Amino acid sequence: MATQTGNAVIGQSGGPTSVINQSLVGVIREMKRARIVDQLLGARHGVRGIVNEDFIVLNEAPDELLERIANTPAAALGSTRDKPDQAYCEKIFQSFAKHNVRYFFYIGGNDSADTARIVGELAAKAGHDLKVFHIPKTIDNDLRVHDHTPGYGSAAKFVAAAIMGDNFDNRSLPGIKVDVIMGRHAGFLTAASVLARQHDNDGPHLIYVPEAPLSEEKFLADVDRVYSKQGRCLIAVSEGVSQPNGKAWAEAMTSNLERDAHGNIQLSGTGALGDYLASMITKKLQAPGGKKLRVRADTFGYLQRSFPGFVSGTDAREAHLVGEMAVRYAAQGQTGGSVAMKRTGGDDYKIDTFLTPLSTVARETKHLDPSYIADGNNITDAFREYARPLVGGLPRVGTFDELKK
Amino acid sequence: MATQTGNAVIGQSGGPTSVINQSLVGVIREMKRARIVDQLLGARHGVRGIVNEDFIVLNEAPDELLERIANTPAAALGSTRDKPDQAYCEKIFQSFAKHNVRYFFYIGGNDSADTARIVGELAAKAGHDLKVFHIPKTIDNDLRVHDHTPGYGSAAKFVAAAIMGDNFDNRSLPGIKVDVIMGRHAGFLTAASVLARQHDNDGPHLIYVPEAPLSEEKFLADVDRVYSKQGRCLIAVSEGVSQPNGKAWAEAMTSNLERDAHGNIQLSGTGALGDYLASMITKKLQAPGGKKLRVRADTFGYLQRSFPGFVSGTDAREAHLVGEMAVRYAAQGQTGGSVAMKRTGGDDYKIDTFLTPLSTVARETKHLDPSYIADGNNITDAFREYARPLVGGLPRVGTFDELKK
Repeated sequence: MATQTGNAVIGQSGGPTSVINQSLVGVIREMKRARIVDQLLGARHGVRGIVNEDFIVLNEAPDELLERIANTPAAALGSTRDKPDQAYCEKIFQSFAKHNVRYFFYIGGNDSADTARIVGELAAKAGHDLKVFHIPKTIDNDLRVHDHTPGYGSAAKFVAAAIMGDNFDNRSLPGIKVDVIMGRHAGFLTAASVLARQHDNDGPHLIYVPEAPLSEEKFLADVDRVYSKQGRCLIAVSEGVSQPNGKAWAEAMTSNLERDAHGNIQLSGTGALGDYLASMITKKLQAPGGKKLRVRADTFGYLQRSFPGFVSGTDAREAHLVGEMAVRYAAQGQTGGSVAMKRTGGDDYKIDTFLTPLSTVARETKHLDPSYIADGNNITDAFREYARPLVGGLPRVGTFDELKK
Repeated sequence: MATQTGNAVIGQSGGPTSVINQSLVGVIREMKRARIVDQLLGARHGVRGIVNEDFIVLNEAPDELLERIANTPAAALGSTRDKPDQAYCEKIFQSFAKHNVRYFFYIGGNDSADTARIVGELAAKAGHDLKVFHIPKTIDNDLRVHDHTPGYGSAAKFVAAAIMGDNFDNRSLPGIKVDVIMGRHAGFLTAASVLARQHDNDGPHLIYVPEAPLSEEKFLADVDRVYSKQGRCLIAVSEGVSQPNGKAWAEAMTSNLERDAHGNIQLSGTGALGDYLASMITKKLQAPGGKKLRVRADTFGYLQRSFPGFVSGTDAREAHLVGEMAVRYAAQGQTGGSVAMKRTGGDDYKIDTFLTPLSTVARETKHLDPSYIADGNNITDAFREYARPLVGGLPRVGTFDELKK
């Protein structure tokens, strides 16, 4: 057993997920077993809690409570949007020095990996022995090196199920439906909507991701073609979908709105892009016979990252595992890194963890591989194969069309 | 066994629910057992399918398919928004006469009960023996006589879980969050958000329903008070929330927007009310120290009525039961009515079904009892007791605040 010579700090950062607390509980449980520190301190609201010395002692948290917290969505320690610069990182290090912190576990995305990296370098310069572990978390699934990230599978399962339900709603009362899905720069979450398709003619009929720029002309022509053929159209679109000039649709739209609204109406809310696209379809397209189209829009919003009781089992297990493994790597004497997953199972889905240097994950993000996108409006089977095991089982549904076969 | 002297028609109407197919499958299964007709015809898209003689023969649907369809959200036969007038009802009756239809099962809300009533009267006048059964369905839970309606429990479970998740998201990254919930005239679904509260300080902190008119002044004062005390505020508001002058907020807002937008922007999409309320808070309230508030809005949209794999078990069973019972009442020789539920269990939740005349359910709707509303911004324990058994179990969650106790 390693000698207990100091304390550890753990924090959570950025947009929450529905399994981020699995990683937290994975760390706490393994810390209780490994006993490599005197105290495990939970920082309230990430780096802000470190600087403000706002800590909770987590060593003695009872198992029954940990079990419930593991199943609770969003950051149980509180999260933060702070993105520390060099001066902020120095304050973090000063807090660590004061509290004799020797291990830092930071659960977050690429920004958090960068913060962890800088703090680690400051400690090294000062000759303060500090081991820094980044534990991945993001529904955007956009970390480099990582095959995928905890939080993504559950958000993707929510999106796939929501689109599946909406497909049947749209079959029931046919029309055109726009569903706006999270993802400003990477389309992984929107792409997961493809898993909703179980029958011919199932939606989503059109899928738009930020990686495939979209003109108004193409969008309207696509919708018109699907609607003419099927009498309905279900569209899954990333909130970050962009125009051929590289500008995000949401951005272009917002500046129009501000110019038109005499300062009286400010439309920064999440429903705006969906409503805008729906309104564009209503104005520019017609149903056969010149009738008005039935067009609706929904924006899935925060539910995608926080809906409880409907997580991917694989995702929950893996989120717990990367937390646990961070502590095991620490107990083995590893000096730090980001705990990543790779696939090792060939045709069967299996993963293994490994440590990758923080610099390989920090700052830049990953995008959908071009092989996952077809025709600028669809997602390929290659992506389905990639995403299916992360999402796990979806409800089994049926239609009376099957009677005809 | 009754003599087989004709056919039966079944249809689905109005906004779908996630268990409406349980009722359909309940009817089909019981029809296969009871054998009181030659053919059970499913009308595609409700009354429209009857008039267009667009039927599917349902007698021979295999059990395995029925099991999947029962678990599929939205109307498997297709739904319709058509609200038949007298002339339309006559066409329905003509189709019934032509196809020797002796039983009509119509799954829907109060409008469907009214259609069923009129068609029944036309048949009686013509001396055509037709037994008409209305099978209740609505997420709005607004049918008179009925203790509650199939579809409501599952939509309420979705709303309660969504608000529960969003409460933890809002704890993680504090701010003000507006969640807009379905319900134009009745607040039952929005009221179910109260079931999300499991700890002191849990949201929703404010709940607004159409039955309690709301002024801008009260809304802003409520939000300011909660935010000042807790540093965050989660608001659940019905899409049909109204102003003291009786006008719906959504309506008042839409006319403002149209006036300001030079005809260039049309905001009839579902995200508009949430964005409007969020924008009002941003403009009129300030964080301590004059800082800008973090205000966000989500509109839960169609997911509330169509999300698969997360239904209330009680709701699914009861939806199946009312379908089954409609056929049993028919087989017993009852002449028709709406299949309603009443509670019979005292402290334990139990229900029994009974037939109520179609006229008692048709046209008018039910509203939240005043005893369920407190202070114009909250929902009482009496409502919790009413709704809890309909929704069933919710995820068990925890927070580190429990460590302090």
